[in-house]
Amino acid sequence: MPRSTPDLIKLATRAPGNLHKEATLRELKRIKQELIELQDRLYAENRRSVLVVLQGMDASGKDGLIRRVFSGINPQGVRVHSFKEPTKLELAHDFLWRVHQQVPPRGMLHVFNRSHYEDVLITRVAGLIPAEEAHRRFTAINAFEKLLQQAGTTVLKCYLHVSEEEQRKRLEERVTDAAKQWKYEAGDEEKARQWPAYRTVYEDVFEHCSPASCPWHIVPADQNWYKAYEVARLLRDALVAMNPQYPSNKTERPK
Amino acid sequence: MPRSTPDLIKLATRAPGNLHKEATLRELKRIKQELIELQDRLYAENRRSVLVVLQGMDASGKDGLIRRVFSGINPQGVRVHSFKEPTKLELAHDFLWRVHQQVPPRGMLHVFNRSHYEDVLITRVAGLIPAEEAHRRFTAINAFEKLLQQAGTTVLKCYLHVSEEEQRKRLEERVTDAAKQWKYEAGDEEKARQWPAYRTVYEDVFEHCSPASCPWHIVPADQNWYKAYEVARLLRDALVAMNPQYPSNKTERPK
Repeated sequence: MPRSTPDLIKLATRAPGNLHKEATLRELKRIKQELIELQDRLYAENRRSVLVVLQGMDASGKDGLIRRVFSGINPQGVRVHSFKEPTKLELAHDFLWRVHQQVPPRGMLHVFNRSHYEDVLITRVAGLIPAEEAHRRFTAINAFEKLLQQAGTTVLKCYLHVSEEEQRKRLEERVTDAAKQWKYEAGDEEKARQWPAYRTVYEDVFEHCSPASCPWHIVPADQNWYKAYEVARLLRDALVAMNPQYPSNKTERPK
Repeated sequence: MPRSTPDLIKLATRAPGNLHKEATLRELKRIKQELIELQDRLYAENRRSVLVVLQGMDASGKDGLIRRVFSGINPQGVRVHSFKEPTKLELAHDFLWRVHQQVPPRGMLHVFNRSHYEDVLITRVAGLIPAEEAHRRFTAINAFEKLLQQAGTTVLKCYLHVSEEEQRKRLEERVTDAAKQWKYEAGDEEKARQWPAYRTVYEDVFEHCSPASCPWHIVPADQNWYKAYEVARLLRDALVAMNPQYPSNKTERPK
């Protein structure tokens, strides 16, 4: 676990300058072909699983990223779960209860659009829990993710890092751009003012919930093409490391 | 509801003779683009939903069809559920209990790979329930599907109609073809002998669970390219009929 607090302000929100958009998109296309084959092997092997945890501030582009990276992979082996405001039933349980129900069984690749981390992010920005409770939850989260890993799940955590300026621009477009108006929600103006508050609580997460065995990846997110490429690449590398294999046969064959 | 029993033996298992494979695959590609846009509108509209029920005998190609038709659609709005042998907990409830939990909420497109129909198919072939119980279940199924439709769900039921010869060939390939051996399961030889038994119980389903408002579509399934085209076309037509719309905005915008 890193000993010092990462400083989000200092981390890139854009692609490295030497990267060309068109070439990167071609590379993304190639990586997606690899992902299709690797997921097929993961599913056929039916022994291990993958959980991609996506976090990011409002308008960091989580929905678009899911479409760009995971479209084309066999949907039978992929499941996306979007965590919304908890229901009364969910709130009547511990904060990991509803999350635990959605973790991937053997062979599956699950994607969390938001996750258990909201319980140490929005809850803090909204002043619903004190810092001590957040720190108790960090411990619980680390233990939970370790449990999943020990059961054969590769956990890939990606933070879509959008700059304050880009976020403001995108939230404004929801009002001014006819094609984006349906995304507008009451409170979007308020969200645009909360970037610094979210920065603080995210930094606390990266300090306390990023053990070497399960680190956070900070993905520059001001450009949609780059973040899709980056997340696809991270997922490809994780799957290559797992190296799933087609089983020779499911049960014994006749002689 | 049709008054006479449909005779599966008389229904085509191959594409019409005037259809060319290459041209049909090009058309499938075009239809998939339409599906991507229509699903996006369904999701944004967030008012209605779609349930695709896929049934077919073993080796009729359900898994491959799901990959061919639904890959490429935004996975955030699509969920595939494969119904396997029921667990003890599931068996401790009525047969629709586990199925009801997986129906699509507003905005979503769900695909059932096998479904509640197994409870009036394999159960009968295996001699687990008498004909009277099957007929009680037909009534329950019709009421259940009507409930879903009244809640805004379009239910599209497709039977992948594979011929006895083609099924035998495919099951044999699981033994002889190295790339398909992992699909082999004990009992595949037995399955190849059960085509006539399944034919009888499927015909009973088509007679009793195919009201005009929720008919079964019998899809010729001996050729993978044709069945994918046919199911994609049926789904496209269903979505066009629903004509989902992007909402102008989610909540009230500032003036």
